[in-house]
Amino acid sequence: MSIRYPNGKRYVPKGSTLSQNKKERTNYSNRGMTLEDDLNDTNTFYLHSQKAVIHKKPTPVQIVQVDYPRRSAAVIKEAYFKQASTTDYNGVYRGKYIDFEAKETKNKTSFPLQNFHQHQIEHMEAVINQNGISFIILSFTLFDEIYLLDAQILIHHYQNQNNGRKSIRKKDIEEWGHLIKIGYQPRIDYLSIVDQVYFQ
Amino acid sequence: MSIRYPNGKRYVPKGSTLSQNKKERTNYSNRGMTLEDDLNDTNTFYLHSQKAVIHKKPTPVQIVQVDYPRRSAAVIKEAYFKQASTTDYNGVYRGKYIDFEAKETKNKTSFPLQNFHQHQIEHMEAVINQNGISFIILSFTLFDEIYLLDAQILIHHYQNQNNGRKSIRKKDIEEWGHLIKIGYQPRIDYLSIVDQVYFQ
Repeated sequence: MSIRYPNGKRYVPKGSTLSQNKKERTNYSNRGMTLEDDLNDTNTFYLHSQKAVIHKKPTPVQIVQVDYPRRSAAVIKEAYFKQASTTDYNGVYRGKYIDFEAKETKNKTSFPLQNFHQHQIEHMEAVINQNGISFIILSFTLFDEIYLLDAQILIHHYQNQNNGRKSIRKKDIEEWGHLIKIGYQPRIDYLSIVDQVYFQ
Repeated sequence: MSIRYPNGKRYVPKGSTLSQNKKERTNYSNRGMTLEDDLNDTNTFYLHSQKAVIHKKPTPVQIVQVDYPRRSAAVIKEAYFKQASTTDYNGVYRGKYIDFEAKETKNKTSFPLQNFHQHQIEHMEAVINQNGISFIILSFTLFDEIYLLDAQILIHHYQNQNNGRKSIRKKDIEEWGHLIKIGYQPRIDYLSIVDQVYFQ
């Protein structure tokens, strides 16, 4: 999850450093863009070209204290980040409900399952039960490779973590997932994969 | 939009007073619940009974300053409420994309259109173009009456505001909308109306 301050400076989570962060951004397609930025641009393109209506949900925040300075807007003075109970992106495409989560990793050989929470896995199962389309978008930033993987494959791996494996092998993602072409407009044309996988 | 502090106290927007607010809450079905509370309970019921997956989106907030006190979670020290560019509720039901906004009024004879923003109207149009299901839920709190109204009727009224009328007459809502039965569980069974209106 990437948050930007109004001055355009990127919000850097505790534990990471600006230099690491900069390296990651440079590696990612050399465009200084995060996966979230690219997906937001892609969704804006889909919206304006009337192809789909898909938005990122706002970051859930627990508001504790709000001030009302005279003659100006309400200021939130104390709030905390909350864990999301759903995935970050949803919307409608060709009449169907679309729901996904997007994550990136600097790993080379596998995608760590700790990127996902139990609540999100349950949400994906519930969406599938309602005949919604549920998937994840996984970015291997060191290779500039972005895959679409059906949520059922993630759920299978997540539920079998007790057997020892805490990640999905990259070669399994290559086999069961679908490489998304990175372009200029849209940047990450994941709906072309959705067409193939869910509308054939 | 109703926001609650963690102590359960309701967030009261500037300009309103606690006493007005209390009166409104008492009048609303005498259960001390807001429309949002009732819809959240209804959606939780739908989720747990595997009938639908519909959530309220988090309140959009522009984060300006975050502090990291030692050994504890990040604290947001400065943030502002942002205007939503979509509706508040969306999800999936019987494979279809569901999208709606919910509003209440103390008016007796009409529903003011100022409850909706241009961005939301455009969002509803885009959803309809993608064959999603788009509607509004309108609560007349003084009568304990809650209606489901198809978004196309709202859009029609919104776009004809320049002809002078800044609200939708209650009698038009009675004629073109659908009264939702208020019950115990679910409290506001709007999907029974969705079945009638969109799945026949």
